[in-house]
Amino acid sequence: MARYTESRMRHRVVILGGGFAGLYAAQSLGRTSTEITLVDKRNFHLFQPLLYQVATGALSPGDIASPLRFVLNGQRNTRVLMAEAGGLDAIRREVFLSDGTSIPYDTLIVATGATHHYFGHETWAQHAPGLKTIEDATEIRSRILSAFERAEMSTNSDERLALLTFVVVGGGATGVELAGALGEIAHDTLRKDFRGINPADARILLIEGADRLLPVWPPDLSRAAERALIRFGVRAHLNARVTNIDAEGVRFETAEGPMQIASRTVIWAAGVQASPWGKILAQAAGAPLDGAGRVLVSDDLSVPSHPEILVIGDLAHIDQDGQPVPGVAPAAMQQGRFAARLIEARLRNCTLAPFRYRNKGNLATIGRNRAVAELGRLHLSGYPAWLLWVFIHLLYIVEFESRLLIAIQWAYDYFTWNRGARLITGTGKMRPEE
Amino acid sequence: MARYTESRMRHRVVILGGGFAGLYAAQSLGRTSTEITLVDKRNFHLFQPLLYQVATGALSPGDIASPLRFVLNGQRNTRVLMAEAGGLDAIRREVFLSDGTSIPYDTLIVATGATHHYFGHETWAQHAPGLKTIEDATEIRSRILSAFERAEMSTNSDERLALLTFVVVGGGATGVELAGALGEIAHDTLRKDFRGINPADARILLIEGADRLLPVWPPDLSRAAERALIRFGVRAHLNARVTNIDAEGVRFETAEGPMQIASRTVIWAAGVQASPWGKILAQAAGAPLDGAGRVLVSDDLSVPSHPEILVIGDLAHIDQDGQPVPGVAPAAMQQGRFAARLIEARLRNCTLAPFRYRNKGNLATIGRNRAVAELGRLHLSGYPAWLLWVFIHLLYIVEFESRLLIAIQWAYDYFTWNRGARLITGTGKMRPEE
Repeated sequence: MARYTESRMRHRVVILGGGFAGLYAAQSLGRTSTEITLVDKRNFHLFQPLLYQVATGALSPGDIASPLRFVLNGQRNTRVLMAEAGGLDAIRREVFLSDGTSIPYDTLIVATGATHHYFGHETWAQHAPGLKTIEDATEIRSRILSAFERAEMSTNSDERLALLTFVVVGGGATGVELAGALGEIAHDTLRKDFRGINPADARILLIEGADRLLPVWPPDLSRAAERALIRFGVRAHLNARVTNIDAEGVRFETAEGPMQIASRTVIWAAGVQASPWGKILAQAAGAPLDGAGRVLVSDDLSVPSHPEILVIGDLAHIDQDGQPVPGVAPAAMQQGRFAARLIEARLRNCTLAPFRYRNKGNLATIGRNRAVAELGRLHLSGYPAWLLWVFIHLLYIVEFESRLLIAIQWAYDYFTWNRGARLITGTGKMRPEE
Repeated sequence: MARYTESRMRHRVVILGGGFAGLYAAQSLGRTSTEITLVDKRNFHLFQPLLYQVATGALSPGDIASPLRFVLNGQRNTRVLMAEAGGLDAIRREVFLSDGTSIPYDTLIVATGATHHYFGHETWAQHAPGLKTIEDATEIRSRILSAFERAEMSTNSDERLALLTFVVVGGGATGVELAGALGEIAHDTLRKDFRGINPADARILLIEGADRLLPVWPPDLSRAAERALIRFGVRAHLNARVTNIDAEGVRFETAEGPMQIASRTVIWAAGVQASPWGKILAQAAGAPLDGAGRVLVSDDLSVPSHPEILVIGDLAHIDQDGQPVPGVAPAAMQQGRFAARLIEARLRNCTLAPFRYRNKGNLATIGRNRAVAELGRLHLSGYPAWLLWVFIHLLYIVEFESRLLIAIQWAYDYFTWNRGARLITGTGKMRPEE
């Protein structure tokens, strides 16, 4: 690795993606003698773990997004480009942007993440949007709120039932949090808002393929989550396999046979797929991929045949103790910090121990006042877990922006039982009648 | 008016539009023995005077919008319908919704407001969006921020100049506030954010047809506004008439001859036009209209031949002391309250003095720390006017939601020189290269 120190130019690091992995890498390199270019097609970092709160009207998009330039403007060695990176020459060490310009690198960090995956059923996407972007969240928010509005106007009882039926596909952390928030909206938030319908009549279904919710969590917390959801009127269907989603609703298979649920609001929280950069790295740098298109990285997070290309975050597949490291924000942050330390170590001709994910715990909220938490051997549920969830998320947010706005918004909403960001935006129209 | 009390049914009031006029009418009727239906195509009330702050990234949409159902959910005599009202039978006293249902009324209050007006140049709309809706504001925000992003990427100096040239058409209160906020973004907010460009190089032009800014304000405040804008790098062009707007920029005529300004970001703050309900009332109820399509109402705000139809807010044209009552939020609120008092008076067979607008003052901010204020004979400018502006807007907002979030957001932004809601949203892409 002597090559790095021979050059009299500063070591050039190009980072693709400003999510948790890419941003933490950029921040950790802030005080080193590298020259950093962060490329993202959006101009903001998104605090993705709270996206479901935008989708359910508790927070505004601006509350969970920080302009990347603002977050990084104190680092004089860092420039931010709002652009789409679409190609790679791994021999000449250049990344190509969609406008044709190329950016040379000494180390490339690819942190472009993942997107929804409908397992080949792409027609489901229009009826069951997933939750990855700000636009996804405001679209889902509009659909949920419009369903109640249309139910209030409807004179047909079948149609009203379908409008008041909400289906969340996928019983992992995102699905559980979405279903819980939906339950809270129906039972608490909108309680006094309608005259023709009772929002608490809403049916909320959570469909999961495994035999329990939160299948990668300890079983006792799965049961705690299911109990907490029942309190909010959420019914979980386990061992269920979705076979069709269309304008009429959802069809799925269970042990008791097939079920058809009439629903106008279906949300997809089931599958994710690696970003297209998996394929680009496979073609241009011979990177091996797993079945979901993620890059099978070495134990230092590099592409096996290209030590100068690191892959971090949801796009990376790395096994640890026989299990893949999960695609969660703490893992992405740790990988971002590791990538920065690795570059520093190489510049100094030092070696670094392989990457190890340190699982500090898992947390999921379930509506108002309830959560489940796994902290090693300590398992919490209910109110104590919820307080812990609030505390930890505030810590992370404060780290970014030193702003207490979300704390105050939550405190206000908590004491007034309100969700202030209940806006139906977009086309300015309700979804046309199917 | 005896008819109103003869009926044993409750008096049915239908209100079209949940802006300041319609919402204040609904709230003022909250404790009366009427039965109120408020119809709006959106599910929220918009605090329109702060819309320019969303367009310039200082506030999020959720901060200036309150769900109508939430604002009115304490009034048991009020129902809210999210629907578009598209027709009227003034003889049978029924309003038709776009889904075909009809709503009978005893008194109809039309408060559907106004929209942009391009004086017959509809092709200008795509190049110079106006600022009336949340979607307008987020679109303008995306265009402003994307222009800086594209300038950072651009290698062509002419293109970079056009990207860093911002034109606001219309030097009334909205235009002045927008231009001032643009100046603040270029000189303060983005100061440290770019590496290839200096945001303070941005040129900001404000084009006004009259011989001074804020033409309906006292001349000394027009001069104060112009001085304050210069401080933020905003150049005002007076006595200027726009003759063309296209993808290349703006052409306008001045006393010195025609000028062509290359600009990629043009914002329309010039003309407004009455909502389509002006025409509907003319056809269905014989309402007389003015040149801008507003209804020429009687001195009790009713349609001359239909005392049971009231028109309030920006859709109403009423002269007072030889001047039309201006289309501002305080006038709309006063008309909403008057409409409610009139209905109550009629139900009691009382008479009410004609409507009179009480001008409590005019206020416009100009970027950070500066404003102009007219309070009768007292004219303020600079910092004292700005403090007054902050205080008055907080009072109004607190009236709606008792929430202090905006105060805290502003305080935070003020002390950190930040604008937290700098999101480029929408298609997820930058505007395609022209």
